[in-house]
Amino acid sequence: MTKRILRVLAGEAIWPPPIWLMRQAGRYLPEYRALRAQAGGFLSLCLTPELAAEVTLQPVRRFGMDAAILFSDIFVLSWALGQGIEYRDGEGPVLPPIRDAKALAGLDIGRVEKAVAPVLETVQRVRAAVGEAALIGFAGSPFTMACYMVQGTGSKDFAHARAMAYGNPDLFDRLIDLVTEATILYLAGQIAAGAEAVMLFDTWAGLLSPSQFARHVTAPTRRIVAALRAAHPGVPVIGFPRLAGVSVGAFARASGVQAVALDTSADPRAAGLLVDQGVVLQGNLDPLAVVAGGAALEGETRAVLEGFAGRAHIFNLGHGIVPQTPPEHVAALVAQVRAA
Amino acid sequence: MTKRILRVLAGEAIWPPPIWLMRQAGRYLPEYRALRAQAGGFLSLCLTPELAAEVTLQPVRRFGMDAAILFSDIFVLSWALGQGIEYRDGEGPVLPPIRDAKALAGLDIGRVEKAVAPVLETVQRVRAAVGEAALIGFAGSPFTMACYMVQGTGSKDFAHARAMAYGNPDLFDRLIDLVTEATILYLAGQIAAGAEAVMLFDTWAGLLSPSQFARHVTAPTRRIVAALRAAHPGVPVIGFPRLAGVSVGAFARASGVQAVALDTSADPRAAGLLVDQGVVLQGNLDPLAVVAGGAALEGETRAVLEGFAGRAHIFNLGHGIVPQTPPEHVAALVAQVRAA
Repeated sequence: MTKRILRVLAGEAIWPPPIWLMRQAGRYLPEYRALRAQAGGFLSLCLTPELAAEVTLQPVRRFGMDAAILFSDIFVLSWALGQGIEYRDGEGPVLPPIRDAKALAGLDIGRVEKAVAPVLETVQRVRAAVGEAALIGFAGSPFTMACYMVQGTGSKDFAHARAMAYGNPDLFDRLIDLVTEATILYLAGQIAAGAEAVMLFDTWAGLLSPSQFARHVTAPTRRIVAALRAAHPGVPVIGFPRLAGVSVGAFARASGVQAVALDTSADPRAAGLLVDQGVVLQGNLDPLAVVAGGAALEGETRAVLEGFAGRAHIFNLGHGIVPQTPPEHVAALVAQVRAA
Repeated sequence: MTKRILRVLAGEAIWPPPIWLMRQAGRYLPEYRALRAQAGGFLSLCLTPELAAEVTLQPVRRFGMDAAILFSDIFVLSWALGQGIEYRDGEGPVLPPIRDAKALAGLDIGRVEKAVAPVLETVQRVRAAVGEAALIGFAGSPFTMACYMVQGTGSKDFAHARAMAYGNPDLFDRLIDLVTEATILYLAGQIAAGAEAVMLFDTWAGLLSPSQFARHVTAPTRRIVAALRAAHPGVPVIGFPRLAGVSVGAFARASGVQAVALDTSADPRAAGLLVDQGVVLQGNLDPLAVVAGGAALEGETRAVLEGFAGRAHIFNLGHGIVPQTPPEHVAALVAQVRAA
């Protein structure tokens, strides 16, 4: 029997919709925190298949989610290319920024295959244990990766990266190209290891002007989708161009993704009118509603269910779960969706 | 002769479009930095009419902008209501957060009129000196004000404020109501003092789910627009629900604003299809393109001009000028728009 999420990703509208949540494996779960305390640094947790597989499966066991999302970090790929990374408590990751051709030349796609091997082993382990849930692999999109790789830290506006895209477009394009090729390798590897769908997280797509969005978001996504489709036909790609706003329809059409994940701000009906019927929609409950719980969570959940009714829809959040989320609110959310 | 921007705000499409830029008065200008060095703190600069008027007029003189935007700060209003504020270098403003009924009770709308009197004097001074440029007043929108007033600092997600909106909706609604009433007072005062249009900056509107957006962005905007129209018919209101995405059309219709400012991410044609023809559009050049200058700036400027052609349009940025912007790039931008 085909897994529920894969039926939806093939275009079927199912009621109630299947559900999983971005960042469903992580800090809000006590069993994650217990395991995290045993591991070394965060990167070593991501690169230890036994532990990463366990973390991936925790929310599937606890809540009966319809998908397991690979527990990993988008920065595994920049690290695999040769860019250093340091995780500082409360500050987020810090990378030695890539701002000239010399720094770019320090990256090497030849390193990727070996470096990501532990992640692919995690995928194999999860797939063997995941049962009726579908296993979704992922990567950061080339633009969002480039934002951090150039900026070196998180940022409100990634001004260094965006200024480079305008001021030194050749260098920025070469970085995007390199990350695009590495992403194809990485996601194809995840699929070969057992991922049944893959998702591209483009957290910062909404920073871009329409022309830059077409060049640095839509075009690289199209390359990735086409390459994966050629190598692994039938494995769906979910795009998440966060805050793409009115460009979501053009993105879906031009990129060729099977599904678009909508962020919290997207009105399901208004966005649905822009996205062709054949494209599956995923989303988009506000993670802060899950923090609040109670009537607020119920109302927002109902609005999401109703907003996507009639479409092929995967219930999810509009952004990742935040660490202060009470796990019992997640359980209540899943129960409400199951009972819809 | 009616000023060019006011003709556009009355619905007329003018070619080439009039131009002004968000944050056109400020740190990127050497004459601002010179004057800033003479003043005391940032708030005292905003509250010293002679200096604030001079800062407001600097970019109009230097570039011949079609509008002067009042030089002030959205936090003048929270300060006028009685909430403290401290400007820390490189960190942005810090406010004692309002997170319970007791803190909310410490705010007093009765203080506003006297506290904002210096700003209204600035408006009078600018209006007397502004010549052919139009004078635009402004305030932060109630939601964006509430974000900072509850959070106490800038934030990537304003989780405290958004959690309160869900978890303690009565308290959050009372805060929004208070700020809405204070904003009506403040903007009506600016108009009475000489502002020829006003703009509402809702920087963080894109964080909200559709239901929260309708409640905390669209509804308060509608109240402000209706009250200002009753008191001062014919004075246009420009709404700027940043990152509203696919909700921009519903926002424009339901709020009654005369003009909608679009952020950088909004494709002019796709957004234009959602916004009724009678609503004027403002925007939306990427501020990072102005930092880059040269061919990138020319190309992005051309795309904005072409994207809005045929509509009543005011050329502007999609977000504020950033401090590292070379003033000569602004001059080149204005020249290109004038020659279009």
